[in-house]
Amino acid sequence: MSSHDHRTLFESDLPLIQAPMAGVQTHRLAVAVSGAGALGSLPCAMLSADALRTELMALQTGASGPFNVNFFCHVPTRPDPAGEQRWRDRLAPYYREFGLDPVDVPAGPARAPFSDEIADIVEPFRPAVVSFHFGLPHPGLLARVKGWGSKVLSTATTVDEARWLATRGVDAVIAQGLEAGGHRGHFLDPDLTRQAGTLALLPQIVNAVDVPVIAAGGIADRAGVAAALALGASAVQIGTAYLLCDEATTSQPHRAALRSADARHTALTNVFSGRPARGIVNRVMRELGMLCEAAPEFPLASAALAPLRAAAEQRGSGDFSPLWAGQNTSGCRGVGAAELTRTLGAGFES
Amino acid sequence: MSSHDHRTLFESDLPLIQAPMAGVQTHRLAVAVSGAGALGSLPCAMLSADALRTELMALQTGASGPFNVNFFCHVPTRPDPAGEQRWRDRLAPYYREFGLDPVDVPAGPARAPFSDEIADIVEPFRPAVVSFHFGLPHPGLLARVKGWGSKVLSTATTVDEARWLATRGVDAVIAQGLEAGGHRGHFLDPDLTRQAGTLALLPQIVNAVDVPVIAAGGIADRAGVAAALALGASAVQIGTAYLLCDEATTSQPHRAALRSADARHTALTNVFSGRPARGIVNRVMRELGMLCEAAPEFPLASAALAPLRAAAEQRGSGDFSPLWAGQNTSGCRGVGAAELTRTLGAGFES
Repeated sequence: MSSHDHRTLFESDLPLIQAPMAGVQTHRLAVAVSGAGALGSLPCAMLSADALRTELMALQTGASGPFNVNFFCHVPTRPDPAGEQRWRDRLAPYYREFGLDPVDVPAGPARAPFSDEIADIVEPFRPAVVSFHFGLPHPGLLARVKGWGSKVLSTATTVDEARWLATRGVDAVIAQGLEAGGHRGHFLDPDLTRQAGTLALLPQIVNAVDVPVIAAGGIADRAGVAAALALGASAVQIGTAYLLCDEATTSQPHRAALRSADARHTALTNVFSGRPARGIVNRVMRELGMLCEAAPEFPLASAALAPLRAAAEQRGSGDFSPLWAGQNTSGCRGVGAAELTRTLGAGFES
Repeated sequence: MSSHDHRTLFESDLPLIQAPMAGVQTHRLAVAVSGAGALGSLPCAMLSADALRTELMALQTGASGPFNVNFFCHVPTRPDPAGEQRWRDRLAPYYREFGLDPVDVPAGPARAPFSDEIADIVEPFRPAVVSFHFGLPHPGLLARVKGWGSKVLSTATTVDEARWLATRGVDAVIAQGLEAGGHRGHFLDPDLTRQAGTLALLPQIVNAVDVPVIAAGGIADRAGVAAALALGASAVQIGTAYLLCDEATTSQPHRAALRSADARHTALTNVFSGRPARGIVNRVMRELGMLCEAAPEFPLASAALAPLRAAAEQRGSGDFSPLWAGQNTSGCRGVGAAELTRTLGAGFES
């Protein structure tokens, strides 16, 4: 693949995607990144239909360049009242500590997978790129997205997943190394030992598929971009470095953790959503265990934890918050996202 | 650090170290690598005093360039008869399967840490480089090695370990990313979640210490070397790619696994030695669990497993063998080590 793939793929000057990061950004971050020549992304998995419409309008109005909208493609989990009760029992000491009544805690998923109804909202905006996490929508829906002209990206955590995606017609594969912050994108096999670091995964995926490959995980600065391109990537996707940007909505406890020595210790945990995701190790991860068997399946674990998170954050604490971050937080800077984008992309313009 | 550090450091033409790999190589691999302009390494941790002397003489005679001798610096574990019994009880079904009498299985460590006695044997050879795994020898012994003129390297799996090593006077730090095959080199903290992939770890160590940094883990070809140098490495250390070389003593089951699709799934396991090490997933890892609580402390787990390994290998099976490999086996080639070295280093001569 040539070094100009990114231009064909997503019409941007820089071979750089700002990673969609649900919960810590709105269209504002994407608009700033897009204005600086990279591909800004809007994370849509946690938005209601109304919020999605509003964000898309703001993004289309604000963005001077192409943008990416990101959705989840998980198979919805059936409600499991017994499992939900075990999870709440496990959290009961914390409810007591914060004086919360578990009866008041709502159940139910906070994240819906991409659907025809969501596609109805997205279609009029015809984003340059639609990216997916946890696989792909069903073939008919995928064809619909491609049919209206969006390029389609999705995440692979293994060579097998990359091949699976390429066979089904994605325009590019995002190779997500184990260093990456946030949710692991696996969808064929939940065994985390099958997943590799970016330096090992990326060239193997480049070698295995005929579509362009985008490197994600552990890239924090220009040198990281250069290294990924040397390994055959057509572009890179960077998330963590943007978390302290002015336009990010990263919470104060999350920002504080990113600025502290705590940021040097991240781990994969399922306690926040039910699926493994990388964040800075905090109290709830330590006490429940990083990968906790009591956590309900994705995305059901979130609901019971939400009031604890809110109560702790009110006290200025990130003890119960998902402090998403990758294994290299050295690139986090409290500047405007356009400035950070220009720094990351300097010399890689095409 | 400049791109010529490796020449000052270890007198080789190429910024490339062949990783010392105990159990799968002798001086022959190191001689071939050294002849091709990189730094060949002799793994010494499992050698008796006599074997060490013999290997060093053969290496000195054969090598046309500088070489590296590698030792372990673990704190010897006290014998634990109750723990040993629990381990043998866990292995009992396998002893029965192979018709082995556990009474005949010798106990005791197979690996001794670097010591003054070993230094007596090494000193006359004055190797260009002495490298350590699992920390450093005590200050007096370290001073002795540096005093006779060898450059000293040691492995860091975290930024903290890199700083610890630099403070104690190593000439370079090997940044071992999680992708690497064989034993994890950690010595300050056994928590594996503190360890990161090469792409994340390497630049953070480069930034944290004033000595040259050598990248290890996941590097399988020229592009991997270029990527590591782009991230600030002064040189790279490559192991896995050499495992199929003519001069390696890699067993037939190990070679077969490396050539098969099995090689795509490696994991960290403690069942072979008591310390986490990365190898291709096989039967004993799957059945005992990758990180098995019944395994005695390093290096005591090895003894009870050895006869099972021998019996299985006699049947042509690697079910009980440590099939060490990193997360990127795509660079393994059944060629002479000199040819592989020249391919890996092409364009990086200085």
